Amino acid sequence: MSNLDQIAKLSGFSKATVSRVLNHSPHVSQTTRDTIMKIMEELDYVPNGNAISLSKGQTEQIGMVTEGINEVMLPFLNSFVETASQYGYQTIIYTSGGDPAKELQAFEDMRRKRVDALVISTCVNDLELLSSYGKYGPIVSWQRMERPEIQSVAMNQYEGYMLGLEHVIKQGYRRIANAFGRPTSMNTSGRMQAYQDIVRKYNLPVQPDWSPTGIYSIRQGEQLVRELLLNPGEHPNVILCANDLVAAGVLNEARRMGVKVPEELAVVGFDNTELAHTLGITSIYNPIAAQAQNAFQLILGRLKGTEAAQQQLEFQLVKRATT
Amino acid sequence: MSNLDQIAKLSGFSKATVSRVLNHSPHVSQTTRDTIMKIMEELDYVPNGNAISLSKGQTEQIGMVTEGINEVMLPFLNSFVETASQYGYQTIIYTSGGDPAKELQAFEDMRRKRVDALVISTCVNDLELLSSYGKYGPIVSWQRMERPEIQSVAMNQYEGYMLGLEHVIKQGYRRIANAFGRPTSMNTSGRMQAYQDIVRKYNLPVQPDWSPTGIYSIRQGEQLVRELLLNPGEHPNVILCANDLVAAGVLNEARRMGVKVPEELAVVGFDNTELAHTLGITSIYNPIAAQAQNAFQLILGRLKGTEAAQQQLEFQLVKRATT
Repeated sequence: MSNLDQIAKLSGFSKATVSRVLNHSPHVSQTTRDTIMKIMEELDYVPNGNAISLSKGQTEQIGMVTEGINEVMLPFLNSFVETASQYGYQTIIYTSGGDPAKELQAFEDMRRKRVDALVISTCVNDLELLSSYGKYGPIVSWQRMERPEIQSVAMNQYEGYMLGLEHVIKQGYRRIANAFGRPTSMNTSGRMQAYQDIVRKYNLPVQPDWSPTGIYSIRQGEQLVRELLLNPGEHPNVILCANDLVAAGVLNEARRMGVKVPEELAVVGFDNTELAHTLGITSIYNPIAAQAQNAFQLILGRLKGTEAAQQQLEFQLVKRATT
Repeated sequence: MSNLDQIAKLSGFSKATVSRVLNHSPHVSQTTRDTIMKIMEELDYVPNGNAISLSKGQTEQIGMVTEGINEVMLPFLNSFVETASQYGYQTIIYTSGGDPAKELQAFEDMRRKRVDALVISTCVNDLELLSSYGKYGPIVSWQRMERPEIQSVAMNQYEGYMLGLEHVIKQGYRRIANAFGRPTSMNTSGRMQAYQDIVRKYNLPVQPDWSPTGIYSIRQGEQLVRELLLNPGEHPNVILCANDLVAAGVLNEARRMGVKVPEELAVVGFDNTELAHTLGITSIYNPIAAQAQNAFQLILGRLKGTEAAQQQLEFQLVKRATT
């Protein structure tokens, strides 16, 4: 016997009436509604979640897609959660741990109307596959993606990185090392391009070990500065870092090695976090929180069919004691 | 016309046969199944998500409940996500932004079998209400909660904080200030109790402004050290901090003020993060990642009806240059 049958039998009403109560139809008296609701409660009857959401048309939940969560993405995540919340939307974060099948759950959930829209922080699936879900709802990405179905709020990292590069050149540094982040990301490509352009422009010295990728953490920053400064051969006199965590590791380890900062080694972070502030590290202000606000506005515009209120965003150099 | 009707009509099969395909019944030939699946795809028919999950009995998704995400909870979150992933479970994080109604969505989702279990990082709803969802699936909490329906992996913060207190006493410090965290949490109560006990045991001086609560960030640590050291009257000579971020702020601001650390002011962090390591801050190792593993094992044990493989966990003092 189905739940509906059972509720109908116990309440003494027809299945059609029970169904009307479930569907919030106005054509049911309050007494009838109360009786049926009471029996549903006694039976611990769980109305189908999708049915409820579909009747309202929206779930008011937005899925965020990410492999994992680290310090660098926290400002994006928190700003998105807060902005969405101001508009009555809840953010649900789908972690994939890098597993394409788990990541796809979020997209399947949008297809099944469990979430209204998706914002991608990082993703691992083939972009063509992910793009195909664009017909089920808005998809916005924090990363740069050249897919028409996925709008992006990414900023041109070339420009931000160039600010740091031109700054250290102006301060007289020429032996530039780079601690780059994720080797496959378009953000890293943009930064690499800026470095190549500045090398050409100023005819700077280049060493093969001066531009490693995959450097994200304090410990990796510490290790990098040991490798760079203990190597035989020429040493860099400035390190531009993928983020402020790496810069903190570089700065502290360099000091422990007795290296004078910024006289012998300059350090530049990225993102201009509280850590860069408290440690006095020169950094590039990256309007991450504002990007998240833009991402939400793009989604909201699509969901409501209105114009998205986008902010114009710019990187800024914040000079401190390490350059 | 319902989707089922439409698929039946277009495929030439009965509704019963279409239904059998949807329910993965073995009593359908492969040819029939293929024909019907093809039509479902053409119609872009979305099978009901709950129905699919219910047929397997589990969604293999676990919900994490939290107000928001900060650096301090990242090790818990990431360790949980990773452990769950090793066992084939996906973690979905429900952010509430402190809104009880949004938080309740996660619990409603467990009731509707959209997630198999819940792990609470922080929560804002009345615990009696949340406990009532215990009948729908396992609920485990990172925080201490004295509810039989919610298992907890919390450690006794009294013991961890006492390690720090006894250490600074042994180093000769007596004027102890505390930067406490969330005033309403049982974790903070445990730490406050340890402080009160040590004050009594060693007959230590106490000032009303030496134990503020709600101190979580680098900036708040910087501000606190200015307030404490610029006040007229007696100054503390050691600050125990709610976490390593606060300790980093205290340490750097004290140095900027020309205060000698640890001679004039000692600093103790909490959690023993990479930040404490790179800045040389004495800290209390807090086995947060292992707590998350325990939380997952408790859930898995409940879901599979097996014994949970719990680890025995202990705090440890890690002495560095700030004490």
